[in-house]
Amino acid sequence: MQDGRKRVVISNVSPQIEAGQYPAKGVVEEGIVLSADVFSDGHDVVRASVLIKHESEQQWQELPMEFVINDRWEVYWRPEQPGFYQFQVQGWIDHFTTWKKGLVKKYDAHQDIAVELEIGVALVQEVLSLANPQDKPLLDQWIEAIKAVEDPAQAMPLVLSDALSRALNLVKQEALTTRSPSVYPLEIERKKAGFSAWYELFPRSAAAEPGKHGTFKDVKKLVPMVAKMGFDTLYFPPIHPIGELKRKGKNNSLTPSPTDPGSPWAIGNRLGGHKAIHPELGTLKDFRDLIKEAKKFNIELAMDIAYQCAPDHPYVKEHPQWFVWRPDGTVQYAENPPKKYEDILPFNFETDDWENLWQELKSVIDYWIEQGIRVFRIDNPHTKAFAFWEWMIREVRKVHPEVLFLAEAFTRPRVMEKLAKIGFNQSYTYFTWRNTKWEFEQYLTELTQTDLQYYFRPNFWPNTPDILPHHLVVGGENAHIMRLILAATMSSNYGLYGPVYEYGVNTPHPGKEEYTDNEKYEIKHWNWEQYSRTREIITLVNKIRRENPALQATRNIRFTDTDNEQIICYTKTEPATANAVIVAVNLDVHNTQGGHIKVPLHQLGLHPDQPYLVRDMLSGEKYRWRGEYNYVQLNPYEMPAHIFKVEPYNQ
Amino acid sequence: MQDGRKRVVISNVSPQIEAGQYPAKGVVEEGIVLSADVFSDGHDVVRASVLIKHESEQQWQELPMEFVINDRWEVYWRPEQPGFYQFQVQGWIDHFTTWKKGLVKKYDAHQDIAVELEIGVALVQEVLSLANPQDKPLLDQWIEAIKAVEDPAQAMPLVLSDALSRALNLVKQEALTTRSPSVYPLEIERKKAGFSAWYELFPRSAAAEPGKHGTFKDVKKLVPMVAKMGFDTLYFPPIHPIGELKRKGKNNSLTPSPTDPGSPWAIGNRLGGHKAIHPELGTLKDFRDLIKEAKKFNIELAMDIAYQCAPDHPYVKEHPQWFVWRPDGTVQYAENPPKKYEDILPFNFETDDWENLWQELKSVIDYWIEQGIRVFRIDNPHTKAFAFWEWMIREVRKVHPEVLFLAEAFTRPRVMEKLAKIGFNQSYTYFTWRNTKWEFEQYLTELTQTDLQYYFRPNFWPNTPDILPHHLVVGGENAHIMRLILAATMSSNYGLYGPVYEYGVNTPHPGKEEYTDNEKYEIKHWNWEQYSRTREIITLVNKIRRENPALQATRNIRFTDTDNEQIICYTKTEPATANAVIVAVNLDVHNTQGGHIKVPLHQLGLHPDQPYLVRDMLSGEKYRWRGEYNYVQLNPYEMPAHIFKVEPYNQ
Repeated sequence: MQDGRKRVVISNVSPQIEAGQYPAKGVVEEGIVLSADVFSDGHDVVRASVLIKHESEQQWQELPMEFVINDRWEVYWRPEQPGFYQFQVQGWIDHFTTWKKGLVKKYDAHQDIAVELEIGVALVQEVLSLANPQDKPLLDQWIEAIKAVEDPAQAMPLVLSDALSRALNLVKQEALTTRSPSVYPLEIERKKAGFSAWYELFPRSAAAEPGKHGTFKDVKKLVPMVAKMGFDTLYFPPIHPIGELKRKGKNNSLTPSPTDPGSPWAIGNRLGGHKAIHPELGTLKDFRDLIKEAKKFNIELAMDIAYQCAPDHPYVKEHPQWFVWRPDGTVQYAENPPKKYEDILPFNFETDDWENLWQELKSVIDYWIEQGIRVFRIDNPHTKAFAFWEWMIREVRKVHPEVLFLAEAFTRPRVMEKLAKIGFNQSYTYFTWRNTKWEFEQYLTELTQTDLQYYFRPNFWPNTPDILPHHLVVGGENAHIMRLILAATMSSNYGLYGPVYEYGVNTPHPGKEEYTDNEKYEIKHWNWEQYSRTREIITLVNKIRRENPALQATRNIRFTDTDNEQIICYTKTEPATANAVIVAVNLDVHNTQGGHIKVPLHQLGLHPDQPYLVRDMLSGEKYRWRGEYNYVQLNPYEMPAHIFKVEPYNQ
Repeated sequence: MQDGRKRVVISNVSPQIEAGQYPAKGVVEEGIVLSADVFSDGHDVVRASVLIKHESEQQWQELPMEFVINDRWEVYWRPEQPGFYQFQVQGWIDHFTTWKKGLVKKYDAHQDIAVELEIGVALVQEVLSLANPQDKPLLDQWIEAIKAVEDPAQAMPLVLSDALSRALNLVKQEALTTRSPSVYPLEIERKKAGFSAWYELFPRSAAAEPGKHGTFKDVKKLVPMVAKMGFDTLYFPPIHPIGELKRKGKNNSLTPSPTDPGSPWAIGNRLGGHKAIHPELGTLKDFRDLIKEAKKFNIELAMDIAYQCAPDHPYVKEHPQWFVWRPDGTVQYAENPPKKYEDILPFNFETDDWENLWQELKSVIDYWIEQGIRVFRIDNPHTKAFAFWEWMIREVRKVHPEVLFLAEAFTRPRVMEKLAKIGFNQSYTYFTWRNTKWEFEQYLTELTQTDLQYYFRPNFWPNTPDILPHHLVVGGENAHIMRLILAATMSSNYGLYGPVYEYGVNTPHPGKEEYTDNEKYEIKHWNWEQYSRTREIITLVNKIRRENPALQATRNIRFTDTDNEQIICYTKTEPATANAVIVAVNLDVHNTQGGHIKVPLHQLGLHPDQPYLVRDMLSGEKYRWRGEYNYVQLNPYEMPAHIFKVEPYNQ
């Protein structure tokens, strides 16, 4: 039986993901609230603190918690070091403060406090050995002073002494201190996990000359442009040899011409598989050079890892046991009956040889880490075993905690959530299919105000090579600009697939939510010098994101009222820099919309009666506002949004 | 490393209280839904079941779960045996059904299925040894039949055979089956834990003759009346010797007269403590006789256990170490500075001798169990250590699972919740202070639609000797009747303190929410024969509760719309008996109110176009209704409520 004298109970520790089975996530320099219900029987004063420890540390650090409301205690913690942490909540009865409060009330009610003072001396003597050694003289002195008091009234300043309270603040009897039932894990990641802007392009379309297959050397020439637009992550579809057997032609046809390049997601041929480079893109050296070049511009390369094989991938012959074989001796291709995907073979995660399969798949990641890659976009993780991801990501990040994985899972909510819990650092989302104000508010509130905020880190994409949403088709350039601003200001991680985006390419494949003449199946040629209004605004928005810490977090978003359903308005704030941003967006891409937005004054630290300045970082215009409700008017043909920085008004 | 081929994941198992630390509660013959998120990577068909086991059983029982929505699976389980259970959720890939679905789609798309049939045969052969032995001939036969097929079309009826699906329903490969991370506890209690009507009276006021101290023998004569009113639990304030030192007088005064009987909660004097009986009430034999007599009327006696002592309680001398002693040599009485409760000494739960204290306190319960008591109302449990309750209740219920504890904790939400989690079977609530329709809907929804439904079992009291709420003071008899109906129909457990309730005694102590001339401090005399309209309605309501299983549960309450804020309306249903009740109550005790109530037809199994019968079990009147909205009118001077039984309309 444990010590029955422990009277404090601790429940509902937060954050905890599935009872501590998975770590809650944070990023360096972004505050996170650690909280719990802490209380005792009776009316004694309770105290609580968090014990926290980085994996590299031996000693627990103690963070005093503050009482909030309804037995809830919390501490705002701003991690500086990335890595795995553990934390535990502890609580204890503060007999000294309990005594002090009772004494004061008795004194105020003119009751005799002589015996109470004796009790206080006994209390302090009892904990003397537990206090910080440097506080011992203070405590000894206090005891002597109380003993010397002749009139109890003289004792009151001593009883109320702040120095004494401070000295006894975290003093507790170990035997009577309760700890939360578990130690909970936290995973603190590097800044980029929480703040990134991705640009996706097909290297094979990067050639300056029409009709030529683009190379890594061609991409190298585009890096300054990507950097100028303000992106920090340059992401390529798979760069491996492309299967020749069952290769798909233009528009996913089953009848390719001999010159069709095939889909980069049909990985592997006689020249190699997941650790090889498609020869027409260049050499491994070219690729490593490109990584270095990008680094000079503060850009990281992100690789696409699709764990699947073309029928001529070397694995099929070398490791036939990793695939499913049919009674007729053929290998099982991917299918979703009656649909067939004959150019793709899935791995069989139920193979008896699963351990070797797992090791080999992990070795693919290790190989590219060796080449300098630290960011992976994982294709369709929801069609591979969860247990594999959990193991692989943990093993990789044990050695390389700076490596990030983005889950490309457009599937059911519980599946997307689980992938995030088991280790993916960022996740694609339903942003692409949210359109109305109500939909955005619901979705972002779910992402940022529920437990999802602690493990599911959204990455908002207005388009991908697989998805040309309807609103980009009917809304044209205005829609492209509006969706870009929403993605980049709602979510601190976002990305887009270009340059179709900047140039407003938006012809759908008939009956599908996809681009026609899709770059997945053919080489394109782009005139990168061509002017694009969208690109100009992307550049501006990325600059605003870099200059405003409030836009470098996601869970700080708060929606605020507007009196026009077509205008959505939200704020973001960052306490450490006192940065506050208000974003108002016109969701109607065809018409000018005007309306009042409610500025949440208290939340932004503004006074109801004082004017304040809002500076629109898109237009450069300044407005002097006062009070809660203020008018905005947004013309989608000029600029569909305000991104206001809120500043004090100095005359 | 565990077997990596397990592809199914299981999350969010429900019910679970603090990750399985405490059991979720149920009662026999009341269905409870066991559920979980169960899913796999990819598109294979998943299956799930619950493994459940009573503490007395060796073998797990398997309950197949059904898919609900969004990867949620559930099974409705109706326990028959009380006791502790454990359950676990398991999930597996159903390769057979996956194959069947694919095959059907391919067949429908006119694709060749010859190889698919071979795969099916291989699949069934593989699991042959895992199937129920009695199904083996069927499976063998099926394999032969498929092999014999000449035209694939002939195979389709075999593929779709229900018998085959049934035979393979729960067949799974153990190595590939995933189990939920924990085994979760469930505590199934006897019917009374979930359905009870309590009547509280002071035995010392039970004498037939005015001015005499009532006895257990006097109470014995009242038992038939309590039974006639329809109560099943008769609860007394503490029956132990009452402290003589620092005894309180009438209205809690510090200056008692020598004849004042004192508060029964000031327990113990030279004649004994918690295991003794106040001599003026009678002997232990009288008490045991009363228990037996009550049993004849299906009434259980509930005892009040208040773990605190009068200054002359024998414990103070026998076990001084269980109390706090002050430097001046006096014992510490209860106080909430500057208030003093000098007639009450609290136990010191931080005493070094805590183990002996715990054992002694438990022995009090054991003693009264030996005398025949099975229901305890615990006074102020929130001022005694949580760890003690958790240990004591578990130890007692291990031997006597039929023993029930009601927590009298009127305190903060987290504290009340914790007491319920750690073992209390029923709990007092905030019902007494909920007044408006919105307040009731919010509160009952919280109690019955959140996790509280699994561990916090409400017991609604319109009054207690400590609480005379304002609405009973200003609302008189009408308010007493209205609150009684609300308590008894919203909560399946309820109680009241009489006979002040039936006789509408409602003079408050000035400035307090308490009865003046409180029975806690003086002996009353009642004329039990006097007519009471309130008692007539109590009798009727208790009869209706006994006759309608829907009113014998609490978590089945569902509120429905009304177009008058003064009329609250809710339904309760019980699937096993198809019992459906609609309650409509006028919350205005002064005026007749009318309005439309919305009958939730779908929920009650009614057809939108067919008439149905609602029979008011209070008035006996019947109405033929049709459609959703129907008019009610309620006069608080006649009857403030309808309690309708919904029945099919047979011409």
